[in-house]
Amino acid sequence: MSGYKYPKLTLIGAGPGDPELITLKGINALKTADVVLYDALVNPALLDYAPPAAVKIYVGKRNHSHTYSQEQINNLIVDYAFTHGHVVRLKGGDPFVFGRGSEEMAFAENFNIATTIVPGISSSIGVPGLSGIPVTHRGVSESFWVITGTTQNNRLAEDLSLAARSKATIVILMGLNKLQEIVAIFRKENKAHLPVAIIQDGSLKTQKEVLGTIDTILTLAAEKNIQAPAIIMIGEVVKRHKAFEPAVEALNILFN
Amino acid sequence: MSGYKYPKLTLIGAGPGDPELITLKGINALKTADVVLYDALVNPALLDYAPPAAVKIYVGKRNHSHTYSQEQINNLIVDYAFTHGHVVRLKGGDPFVFGRGSEEMAFAENFNIATTIVPGISSSIGVPGLSGIPVTHRGVSESFWVITGTTQNNRLAEDLSLAARSKATIVILMGLNKLQEIVAIFRKENKAHLPVAIIQDGSLKTQKEVLGTIDTILTLAAEKNIQAPAIIMIGEVVKRHKAFEPAVEALNILFN
Repeated sequence: MSGYKYPKLTLIGAGPGDPELITLKGINALKTADVVLYDALVNPALLDYAPPAAVKIYVGKRNHSHTYSQEQINNLIVDYAFTHGHVVRLKGGDPFVFGRGSEEMAFAENFNIATTIVPGISSSIGVPGLSGIPVTHRGVSESFWVITGTTQNNRLAEDLSLAARSKATIVILMGLNKLQEIVAIFRKENKAHLPVAIIQDGSLKTQKEVLGTIDTILTLAAEKNIQAPAIIMIGEVVKRHKAFEPAVEALNILFN
Repeated sequence: MSGYKYPKLTLIGAGPGDPELITLKGINALKTADVVLYDALVNPALLDYAPPAAVKIYVGKRNHSHTYSQEQINNLIVDYAFTHGHVVRLKGGDPFVFGRGSEEMAFAENFNIATTIVPGISSSIGVPGLSGIPVTHRGVSESFWVITGTTQNNRLAEDLSLAARSKATIVILMGLNKLQEIVAIFRKENKAHLPVAIIQDGSLKTQKEVLGTIDTILTLAAEKNIQAPAIIMIGEVVKRHKAFEPAVEALNILFN
């Protein structure tokens, strides 16, 4: 390389998966990348925006086969910023929604590396939206609450019971393997008939969805063999999905 | 016009204001627009993506001077789809976050008009993000709750008391004129010291922000003359803002 490059980190939200769901600002930042560190849920097509000479490293953590620990990723960011210049950290969805993006930013700032963030389409809003389910709808939902299914201690967020008592649309990310517990919490609040949607691989051609209620969703998700990554959405707004009424009607015929 | 054009509606989220914060999918849809109906918070620079011959109509509703009622907007969408073809409804933020987007979509579908949605960067996540405040941070916040300050009946959302009891990061949109009520609700839950950020004109060059706590925010927002549109963010994550500690320290010196 010729000349010293100013060390710099840009955290970019790549959106839910469809490569057209990145922002123009994200594309423009990628074009000046010297290094791209990208996650599992990032569409590899986006790497083509980076210069051919840029270093591109997959640092994803899927299926428990962690290629890099979070500590290693933090160190890669800092090392590459000092040796190569502009490091782009390309993350699925939005970098600040359960992405550990703010930890990476803080770590880099401790080394006086300049940081910028480019927000992305969070799957919490965008994925149900693409299926015609609004997170809010006048007269139906005045708020939405986005909760992680996988906290630091690998437990469900404590606030989920409070969420089940609220009128908010509830969106749970990374919660599929806790579906049974989630259903139990809503049953306890007498919400057995509350509509639920689970959407796997949102915005991609492989997208699968299942529509039901707190009472039926466990069976239906198992039947359809829904797998992670998937978002779980609970609330009256799920009825806005075009297929909701026919699906539930068919079930009523089946079960009555 | 030569030839019949298939009636079609695309709802596009234009993001919080910075014209680079629209998605590539949004830009591509705009390029095929025959009509663009755009809102107050949409950056007019985005209209340049539409063909020069496209009809462009401002249908914003700011400062109580409603140019068009919601009913009129719904009718414009349908009329233009049948007479002109592809109608783009360009809305600030994401079309399904308090945007009445799903009402417009449902109305058009009643006339058998094909509809598509292109999600946008919601200011609820993107605006604090751009200021370095993450909606979630490991060990600090496991969830975020986005609430409107302006419901159908022009009251605060009922769930706000529940929100004040939760550990969620609370983001309130369109709530600036109810700041006093909001502060009172959090005080009642003994959260006087909870950090608060208010960000006006997020992502634009005119952006203004104020950082404080439930106890100080009313005075500070008045001093800085913060005006709508602004988002209110309440929660421990606000401390991640670089200017938070110095700002609060300066206040302690002032008041003690």
